Amino acid sequence: MIFDKTQVKARSEQLALSLTRRLGAAQVVTDRDILESYAKDESSCEPCCPDVAIRARSLEDIVATLEEALQLGVPVTARAGGTGKAGGAIPIYGGCVLDVSRMKQVLEIDKTDLVAVVEPGVVTGELHAQVEAMGLFYSPDPNSLETCCIGGNVAHNAGGPRAFKYGCTRENVLGLEAVLMGGAVHQVGKRTIKGVAGYDLTALLVGSEGTLALTSKAVLRLRRKPEALTTLLARFSDEASATQTVARTIEAGLVPRVLEFMDATVVETLRQAGAGSVPEDTSALLLCEFDGPTESAVEADALRFADICEEQAALDVLAARHVGERNALWAARRDMSNAIKKRAAFKVAEDIVVPRSKAPAMLEGMRRIGERHKTLVAAYGHAGDGNYHVNVLWDDPQYDPHPAVDDLIRLVLSLGGTITGEHGIGVAKRRYLPWEKSEAHLALQRGLKSQFDPAGLLNPGKIF
Amino acid sequence: MIFDKTQVKARSEQLALSLTRRLGAAQVVTDRDILESYAKDESSCEPCCPDVAIRARSLEDIVATLEEALQLGVPVTARAGGTGKAGGAIPIYGGCVLDVSRMKQVLEIDKTDLVAVVEPGVVTGELHAQVEAMGLFYSPDPNSLETCCIGGNVAHNAGGPRAFKYGCTRENVLGLEAVLMGGAVHQVGKRTIKGVAGYDLTALLVGSEGTLALTSKAVLRLRRKPEALTTLLARFSDEASATQTVARTIEAGLVPRVLEFMDATVVETLRQAGAGSVPEDTSALLLCEFDGPTESAVEADALRFADICEEQAALDVLAARHVGERNALWAARRDMSNAIKKRAAFKVAEDIVVPRSKAPAMLEGMRRIGERHKTLVAAYGHAGDGNYHVNVLWDDPQYDPHPAVDDLIRLVLSLGGTITGEHGIGVAKRRYLPWEKSEAHLALQRGLKSQFDPAGLLNPGKIF
Repeated sequence: MIFDKTQVKARSEQLALSLTRRLGAAQVVTDRDILESYAKDESSCEPCCPDVAIRARSLEDIVATLEEALQLGVPVTARAGGTGKAGGAIPIYGGCVLDVSRMKQVLEIDKTDLVAVVEPGVVTGELHAQVEAMGLFYSPDPNSLETCCIGGNVAHNAGGPRAFKYGCTRENVLGLEAVLMGGAVHQVGKRTIKGVAGYDLTALLVGSEGTLALTSKAVLRLRRKPEALTTLLARFSDEASATQTVARTIEAGLVPRVLEFMDATVVETLRQAGAGSVPEDTSALLLCEFDGPTESAVEADALRFADICEEQAALDVLAARHVGERNALWAARRDMSNAIKKRAAFKVAEDIVVPRSKAPAMLEGMRRIGERHKTLVAAYGHAGDGNYHVNVLWDDPQYDPHPAVDDLIRLVLSLGGTITGEHGIGVAKRRYLPWEKSEAHLALQRGLKSQFDPAGLLNPGKIF
Repeated sequence: MIFDKTQVKARSEQLALSLTRRLGAAQVVTDRDILESYAKDESSCEPCCPDVAIRARSLEDIVATLEEALQLGVPVTARAGGTGKAGGAIPIYGGCVLDVSRMKQVLEIDKTDLVAVVEPGVVTGELHAQVEAMGLFYSPDPNSLETCCIGGNVAHNAGGPRAFKYGCTRENVLGLEAVLMGGAVHQVGKRTIKGVAGYDLTALLVGSEGTLALTSKAVLRLRRKPEALTTLLARFSDEASATQTVARTIEAGLVPRVLEFMDATVVETLRQAGAGSVPEDTSALLLCEFDGPTESAVEADALRFADICEEQAALDVLAARHVGERNALWAARRDMSNAIKKRAAFKVAEDIVVPRSKAPAMLEGMRRIGERHKTLVAAYGHAGDGNYHVNVLWDDPQYDPHPAVDDLIRLVLSLGGTITGEHGIGVAKRRYLPWEKSEAHLALQRGLKSQFDPAGLLNPGKIF
């Protein structure tokens, strides 16, 4: 569905009036300067300013907004932390941004049922701290965890390094309170791990990028916080040894909670930035963590991993058991984003996944694409999952990265992979979705969208 | 949608003719005696004979059947192992049964990607044996694993004891080849663990009980076979100590792969049947298994579990490390179904889930329901998940178990539980689904069904 922005603007003014009446002026934003802050997320997609923003403080505020918006025909784009990487929170037709970042209550933490019930504006890292203080654990750890929120994590099925062992957000959401365009409130899912009463709409809503329903409450699965944790950093003189190590680690039945790969270009970038203190002879890094209930179990896993690294001719393997040491080993991985930003004036960040066995072919192919298109390509990411963040970097403002990215996506699909592992489609990857999914299949998906949102007002222009 | 059986019968005769032409007579069953074998599953639901059955041998056969059935308006009920417990495979309006049990090829097993690609008629236990011979592991282990098939497991999101650690079928299906009514073939999902390109239709199709699409191929997630395994059987003189042990085990951060509970009535039933050799003073049993990559890790977990049992005044804890010993400890759990069948002339088996903390209240309430309704109620099941199989047992042919079952379901819902953890709704639990889900929510679910199957011909009368 395509909207006329002038019409949307006029209707949005009406929406501002009626919601000012219902909710009070404090929750309705029409000040242009503040609205500008809702125009973009952390993607490189073109910003677009909403015509009005509503600061929701409760379920009732969300319901009121979606009731009035449907009546007036105003598109609504939900926003929590605004940290998305694919433009999902950008209101591309203007209209209303529904900001849930003030709904930040942790409503319940249950130690026996291992369940937390939270509002969508809860910051993921703050939830981590709160449950960990009680000896519990919420596993999804997207890179933006200091600023991203559970609402956005649910909308995008956020992952993170620990997803390899513990699953992405979908595997850690048991139920949702979801509000449909028009304001109908649905209790979806359950409070228990098992449950097969009817279709699993929880799994469908997680990752639907705010196009089907909005989350007003999430029932999350907790675990006990693992008592023991070991971090290892292995250096390799070539990428192939590192990817071989990944394959052998999985084949040995080890289940690290983190298994992060950094390629030669990333290593070189870190070195140029003076970050992470990586020696000259390094061409690839693997950062690996094992957790478990006891030191001895974790220790045994760490030793087996170190043995595999040695068999694959690792230059060295450093291990950390304490916080200070651990931070030192994570320095390279943590400094990477900034180092990459400094390496070139412009970048496009893709977020592809290939079957684990295809990682060497992907890295090799990626290198050739960089040469062919005269651009720098750097890859790092969650090697256990085969989920690599591939950055195309360039300095010339005239350079068009699309041919290189197109080739990268073709390569990934030819290897049996998928175009996005964590970031979602949003606006940024709409071009590529039909390369992966058939037209008939996308028609079926649009049909599902029409069941939830027949007027097409919920985050229009996203995914499809 | 309700169908006129006479009309369905007439149209089915036409379907038999046209499919005999397309597929050959060998695949089209119209012999009444053979059709009778398709009339029931392993539920106590009323049998219903189909008018025709098609024995599919390939994707093309499924496509042909669904093409012709849509044109002629014939309801189609898919069937793999026929081991369902809720009547999902019973063709309640007659019409066509599409039997996929001959599609039993394991098409691919990949050790590095840890993926298997299988046809829907592959028997779950046979897949276990095949991958385990290669040092791999497919975790879902429904009780019927010797006869049930992957197609049915996918349709019902089958669980089993190991689901506590490794998830149900949904968590172990990466992608599907799915055929819609009318014959359209969709490639759904992916071959990698991560992937967020569009809505997650894999998760939606798993557990949809053959009402949305049929599985012609499943891409399954494998793991490495755990090298080490320890089995423990703990006896308790009261149920409360056993449920306390479950709660403490979870709170201690232990993740057993199996944590099975048997209540006082089950124990007494085993004793009466002379099964499992359970001593007189026992009122509850816990069967627990830990697996892992090394003996020492598994040993440490087993010791901690034994300590917790002791703190909760277990009568004794037996441990097994070898096959013979293990079989002895599993004897009680394995003999249980038969012992329960012998205990009374009639039974209804429910499959409820309650939050872990509510297990004592559930068992206590269940006991009171038994007393009030003058019936025997026996519970066993997956205590880690809070998923209990509750059997209502009686001998008098005039006895109506429904008031007791109604009260049980009310109890479960009042405790924040769900009416089915593994078996699904099918026909058997249609009465109770509206007790758990609102009418508006079920209308939304029916709307999704109409997107996949506008004519309402795929397994009609199930779930809703």
